Amino acid sequence: MNYDFFSPQQIHFGWERFNEVGQLAASLGTRALIISGSRSLEANGVIHDLQRLLSRANVTSELIRTVSNEPLVSDVDLTTNILHHSGIRAGDFVIGIGGGSGIDLAKACAAMVTNRESDSVLDYLEGVGRGLSLTQAPLPMLAIPTTAGTGSEATKNAVISNHSPAFKKSLRANQMIPDLVLCDPKLSCSVPPHITAQTGMDTITQLLESYISSRAKPIPQALCLQGLKLALPALAEAVEDGDSRSSRENMSHAALLSGIALANSGLGMAHGVAPALGIHCNIPHGLACAVMLPATLKTNLSVRQKEYAEITRFISPELSFDETDAAQYLIDQIQALNNRIKIPCTLSELGVTHSQIPDLVASSRGNSMSGNPREISDEELTHILEDLL
Amino acid sequence: MNYDFFSPQQIHFGWERFNEVGQLAASLGTRALIISGSRSLEANGVIHDLQRLLSRANVTSELIRTVSNEPLVSDVDLTTNILHHSGIRAGDFVIGIGGGSGIDLAKACAAMVTNRESDSVLDYLEGVGRGLSLTQAPLPMLAIPTTAGTGSEATKNAVISNHSPAFKKSLRANQMIPDLVLCDPKLSCSVPPHITAQTGMDTITQLLESYISSRAKPIPQALCLQGLKLALPALAEAVEDGDSRSSRENMSHAALLSGIALANSGLGMAHGVAPALGIHCNIPHGLACAVMLPATLKTNLSVRQKEYAEITRFISPELSFDETDAAQYLIDQIQALNNRIKIPCTLSELGVTHSQIPDLVASSRGNSMSGNPREISDEELTHILEDLL
Ligand SMILES: [Zn+2]
Ligand SMILES: [Zn+2]
Repeated sequence: MNYDFFSPQQIHFGWERFNEVGQLAASLGTRALIISGSRSLEANGVIHDLQRLLSRANVTSELIRTVSNEPLVSDVDLTTNILHHSGIRAGDFVIGIGGGSGIDLAKACAAMVTNRESDSVLDYLEGVGRGLSLTQAPLPMLAIPTTAGTGSEATKNAVISNHSPAFKKSLRANQMIPDLVLCDPKLSCSVPPHITAQTGMDTITQLLESYISSRAKPIPQALCLQGLKLALPALAEAVEDGDSRSSRENMSHAALLSGIALANSGLGMAHGVAPALGIHCNIPHGLACAVMLPATLKTNLSVRQKEYAEITRFISPELSFDETDAAQYLIDQIQALNNRIKIPCTLSELGVTHSQIPDLVASSRGNSMSGNPREISDEELTHILEDLL
Repeated sequence: MNYDFFSPQQIHFGWERFNEVGQLAASLGTRALIISGSRSLEANGVIHDLQRLLSRANVTSELIRTVSNEPLVSDVDLTTNILHHSGIRAGDFVIGIGGGSGIDLAKACAAMVTNRESDSVLDYLEGVGRGLSLTQAPLPMLAIPTTAGTGSEATKNAVISNHSPAFKKSLRANQMIPDLVLCDPKLSCSVPPHITAQTGMDTITQLLESYISSRAKPIPQALCLQGLKLALPALAEAVEDGDSRSSRENMSHAALLSGIALANSGLGMAHGVAPALGIHCNIPHGLACAVMLPATLKTNLSVRQKEYAEITRFISPELSFDETDAAQYLIDQIQALNNRIKIPCTLSELGVTHSQIPDLVASSRGNSMSGNPREISDEELTHILEDLL
C-alpha cells in the first residue's frame, strides 16, 4: 500500500448553503476576483447575490470575466491579463463559479497570475509548449460548482483547449486543488435535462474509471463506491425531475467525490477518447464520456471482473450473483441508464464518420488513457471506435 | 445531505517513505521545530535520521522536546515557552513525531505559540478555563505517526490532561488539522504487542463510533467501511507478528482513516467514558476504548441495527445473514477480537471499583458522548459500568 492523497482542505456542502459564502470567503482574503462560467448566472441573479453576500462580509469583489465555452488558451491568457491589470495584492483570492469549464478557467488563471515565466498558459500545458512547471503558489481559491459533473472543484488540473493547432490538454499541479469548496446542490436545479444527463454521466464515468484505474488508490476507491451507490439511482430522477432535491444532492455529492477520486487515481479509456471527440467532432465532454463508457467497461472486463462485482455487491447487496454475473450486471445497468436518459448508443448519431477515426486514435493518448487498466493498442482502439459507429 | 468536511491537504503513505521527509518538510518551511512523543525514537535513531534527512534538504531543525506521557497542561505550556524562546520567525514549522500523545502535544504547541492571549492552554480548552478561541493560524505542521492508533495526524483536536483538578479535555479548532501527513507503517513495527493491541482497538473503536455517530457524515462513513474491512482482519496479525508488513500497513492506513472520520463525525459512548477511565483509574486511552466497545455496540444496537448490518455485509459479502443476524455478527466479531488479543472483558480487571462509578459517570459528559447515537442517562450509564465490573 503506497499512495499520496490530495484533497481540498475544506468542503462545505448543503442545500441553500450558498448563503454562507460571505463568511467562507472572508477566511480566504479581503478581495474576491470572480470568474464565472455561465451567462445565466448573471441573468438569474446568482452573481448579484454573490457580490451582495461578499460585501455584507466585508469582502470587496470584482467580476473579472464570464466565459461560457470550454476554456481556450486565449481565454486563459486574456483573463489572466485582466487579473494582472486589476493590481494583484495581498488579501486577493479567486472565486470560480460555474460548471467544470468555468471552474477550470478560474483555476488556470489563479495559477497563471502568480507564475509569469511565460505570458501564455500554452507553455505550462502537458505535452505542448515549453513544459514549464508552476514555481509559485496560485492565488487562494474558492470553488462554487453550479452543475453536478466534472468535479473540477476538487481536482488539481484544468482542461484547456485550442483550435489551431487543435488540442485539449491539462494544466496540472498539486497546488491547483481549490482551498475551499462550497457546494450548494440547489444551484444545479436550473441545469436543463440534457445537460444534467451528460454531466451526470461524466460523474459516473469518472467514478468507474478511477475505481478501476491502473493507478487506483484506497481512499479514492472508498469514495467511488459511495458515489456510485448514490449516483446510479439518482441520475435518471435528476434528469426527469430537475427540482428533486434528494437527487440533485446525491448527484452534486457524487460529482465532488468523482473529482477527489480522479485527482488521485487517474481515469481510463473513456476519458482518453473524450478530448479527441471534443477536438475533432465538437462533442461535449460529458456526452463523449457517456457514449464511450459501456465500451470502456466491456474492454476492461477481462482484467477488472472482480472490481465490477465489488461495485455491484456494494450497490445492490440484496442480489446474490456470482462474480461473473455481478460484473456483467454493472455493465448492463450502465447501458440501461444511458438508454433511459437518452444518451445515443453510437458515435455516428453524434456525427462521427469513419474517416475521422485515425485522428481520434492519434488524439486519445493523454494522461487519462495511461490510467486505463490495460494497454489499448492503436489497432484495438480503431476497432473499438469502428464498432461504435 | 448537509456536511462540512475537513482533511489534511496532503497525505503521503507508504513503507519506508520516511526517507522522503526532507523534501516534504522543505515544502512547509526552512526550520523544523521537532516535538517527539517517545524517548525510544531517540534511542533507536529515528530522530537522528530525521534531522539528517532534513539537513540534506536544507531544512535546519531543533529537537524542542520529547514527552512520552499523555500531554498535560504543564507540558503544553512549558513546550510552548521553549518554542517561543527559540525565536519564532517566518519559515518555521512544527514536526510532530510519535504516537497520539506526541502528535497531540505538537498540535497544541503549534497553535499556542501563535495564540498568546493567555499563557496557558488551559484557557483554550473545551469546558474548562476562560473558553478562548484561536484567532491566529497555528504554525504549519507535518505529522509523522509512529503508532497505528488515534489518527491524531488527521484530527483537529489535541487531548490535554491535568492532575489537579483532574480532567482530560480537548483543544479543538479546524485550523489544527496538520497540513501534511507522512505515514510510514514501518515505523510502527517496533511497537510492542500489548500497545499494538490497545492502539489498534482505539482505531477500530473510532471507525465504529464515527460510523454510527449522531453526527455521522457521508465521506467519513465511506472511509470507515474501508478502514474496518482492512483493520478487523489485520489487528490480530499485527499483535501476533509485529513485523508483518501488510498488517502494519493496513492498521496504519485504518488509523489515519479513523482520524479523518472522527474529526468530521464525532464519536460515542466508548470515547465518552475513556477519558474518565484515564483520569480516575489511570487506564490508557486505547485500552479503555477496547473494554468499552462491546458494551457500546450493544447499547446502540436498538437504533443502529441497519448500520451494523451494512458493516458486516461490506466486510464479509459472502455471508448471507438477515439484518438482525448481520448486526449481531459484528458485535460477536468485536468481542472475539478483544478475546484473541487479550483485552480484558471487565473493568474490575483494570482495577476499577464500585465506588469510582459516580466519578466516572460525572466525567464522561464531553464532546464524544454527545455523538453517541442515542441519549444515555446517568442512571443507564451507571448500570452499564456496573455490569462491566
Ligand atoms: Zn470527465
Ligand atoms: Zn480514540
